[in-house]
This record gives sequence, structure tokens and C-alpha cells, in this order.
Amino acid sequence: MRKVFQAELQEVREELAEIAKLVAEALSKAVTSFETADVELAQEVIAADAHIDFKQTALDEKAIEILALQGPVASDLRIIVGSLRMSASLERMGDLARHIAQLARLRYPENAAPAAVRPTFSRMAELDQLIIESVAELLETHDMSLVAKIQGANAEIDELHASVFRSVADPSWSESPSSTVDAALASRYLERFADHGVSVARKVSYLVTGEWDGDSAAN
Amino acid sequence: MRKVFQAELQEVREELAEIAKLVAEALSKAVTSFETADVELAQEVIAADAHIDFKQTALDEKAIEILALQGPVASDLRIIVGSLRMSASLERMGDLARHIAQLARLRYPENAAPAAVRPTFSRMAELDQLIIESVAELLETHDMSLVAKIQGANAEIDELHASVFRSVADPSWSESPSSTVDAALASRYLERFADHGVSVARKVSYLVTGEWDGDSAAN
Repeated sequence: MRKVFQAELQEVREELAEIAKLVAEALSKAVTSFETADVELAQEVIAADAHIDFKQTALDEKAIEILALQGPVASDLRIIVGSLRMSASLERMGDLARHIAQLARLRYPENAAPAAVRPTFSRMAELDQLIIESVAELLETHDMSLVAKIQGANAEIDELHASVFRSVADPSWSESPSSTVDAALASRYLERFADHGVSVARKVSYLVTGEWDGDSAAN
Repeated sequence: MRKVFQAELQEVREELAEIAKLVAEALSKAVTSFETADVELAQEVIAADAHIDFKQTALDEKAIEILALQGPVASDLRIIVGSLRMSASLERMGDLARHIAQLARLRYPENAAPAAVRPTFSRMAELDQLIIESVAELLETHDMSLVAKIQGANAEIDELHASVFRSVADPSWSESPSSTVDAALASRYLERFADHGVSVARKVSYLVTGEWDGDSAAN
């Protein structure tokens, strides 16, 4: 029984890492579509999000089945409940990648990334990519050094997010109202993406080390 | 054992309704602070959010304890897992109310609600209030007629959210870039609030009726 259970837990873990990789791919394509006004690529991200949703639902069903058949307690139970939460965060990260692609599609053939903040968005996107790839690796390897890396990237993103609002408030800002909205929303999506990444990282950390550092961030 | 379990489920249900009522109060105050540039009220909402977070954590601990001690299966298990998800949605709704209050505080002594879309925001806020109050009632009474009411309000909010972006794109839009950002973010927060409300309503509906209508909305 115990052996079956361990194999099932391993399966859940691999499946979470698999979903994280799909999200990493979605983010990469979404950002490219956003930066280059590539409407076909944007469309691809939007269509592929249903697959992430499907995988999340399947994983959640698997987790509930484990709860029902194995009746885990203590740390095993927390791993399963934690997996349900991590899958929700990953699914939400997929949604945020889709939202970025939707911004690109909405503005096509124009570029949705306002010129004045394009370098800021590039850096935010790069950090988000690092976060989701690190999350996938963390889920697979439980290499705890990745947690600090993810948190560091998130801190830099928060700073960049704030700088977007300072750019908008600057007298030199000359974008149209619609571009201004795009900038605000894109920045918000990129920032939320990182929050969810941190949330997953903290849950892995808690489940592996048993220590919780008092997260009240993204769910 | 069964009797204890039913009493515990009832406790979880009451606690969820209790959190929903706190969120309703937070939203009401947040919207007033946003509409009237009342920085003290905004501050109150921001401070009170920690209490909602605390109640969510306590409820989740209770749910996990039930899973561990009672090892529920079938529909009982789904109720507990559903409760974990509903509590996450409610906590997130509290965060969104806090974000609205934070916009009010950020712009004080100016008014964060741009004049051109103030009536739209008033209506969105009214609908969000109806949604969260209906969610609280639905959690308490399981009166399924509330589900359609919540979904109807959400549909109207989606329409109003889109209209904010049309207003911003209109040549007559004359707000500053920072006010434009506030409009975009406030609209987004009000729209997401409704999504989470629908998500909770659909989960209650699923748990009570056993029928799922294929939600892929907010988690």
C-alpha cells in the first residue's frame, strides 16, 4: 500500500512539473507574440491554454482519488492538499500567459508593448521565464537553492512593475490612452505571474522542509 | 462518527459564509473609499484584510484536520476539497477589495475614480456587492436560485468592464495617464472579484446538485 502511495505521489509530482513546463512554453510564446505583434503565435498560446486547464483538472482528479483511496494523514496529506493548490497556481499562470497573448491579438497589427516601457517588459518577461523554469525544475528535483532564486527574481519584478507606473506618471509619457491601459495590464499580468511562481516555490519548500515562512501572497 | 462529521461540515460551511460576509464588508468600504477618496476608510480595509487571511488559514487547517481524522470519501471528500477552493477564492476576493482601497490611498487627496467612468464603476461595484452578498447567502442557505443571479450579475460586469476600455479608447477621453491606469486596474479588480464569486457559486452548485456546467473560470 505504502509503495503504491509513494508511486502515486511521484506521479503527481511529475505531472505538476509537466504542467509547469507547458506554462513555461506558453509564457515564452506569449511574450514573443506581445513583443513582435505576432498574432498567429498569440493565437497558438490562446488555443493551447485549454490543454493546460485539462491537465490541471486531470491532476486534481488524481489527487482527489488518492485522498479517497489512500486516506493519507500527516505530511502525506499535506503533500496532496499542497498539490491541489500548486496546480491551481500553475493553471492561473497559464491564464496570465494567455492574457498577455490576448493583448497582442487585440492590438494587432499594432504592437501592444508601448515603446517607452519595452525594455522594462523584456526584463520582466525574462525574469518570469526564469521563475517558471525554476519552478518546473524545483518540482522535479526539490533543489531548495531554486527557492531563493525565484524569490529574488520576484523582488526584481515588483520593482520593475512599480517603475512602469512611474514611467506612466512621468511628463514625458506620450502613449495613447489605450496603449497606457495595455502597459498597465501587461505589467500587472507579468507581476501576478511571478507571485504565483513564488507561491508554488514556497509550498514546495514547506512540504520538503516543513518550515513555512509566512506567505500571504498569491493563492 | 458520522454525526461528528456532519457537525464539522456544518462548521466549515458556516465559517465560509462568515468569511464571505467579511469580504462583503471589505468590498463595501473599499468602494466607498475609492468613490469618495476617503483615505481612513481605505486604511481600515487594508488593515482588515489580514483578518480575512487569518480566517482562511484557520478554515483550511480545519478542513485538513477533517481529512486526516475522518478520511471522508465520495461526496463528503469533494465537499472538503471544494471548501479549500472556495476559501481560496474568498480570500482572493478580499485581496481585490484591498487593492481597490490601495488605489484610493495611492491617489489621495485626489479621487482615484476617473470622472468619465465613475457611473460605470458605481454600477460594477453595486453588482459585485450583490454577488458577494448572494455568495454568503448561498453558502448559508444553499438556495440554488442565487446561482443564476450571481452569473447574471457577472455577465453584466463583463459588459461594463469592456465598456471601460471603449471609453478609454474614445477620442473624448481626457484623463491623465495615471488616471487611465487607475481606471484600467480598478475595472480589472472589479471584474476579477465577480469571476471569483461565480467560481464559488458554481462549486456550491456542483456540490449540492452533483452537476458541473463546465467552468474554466477563476480559481
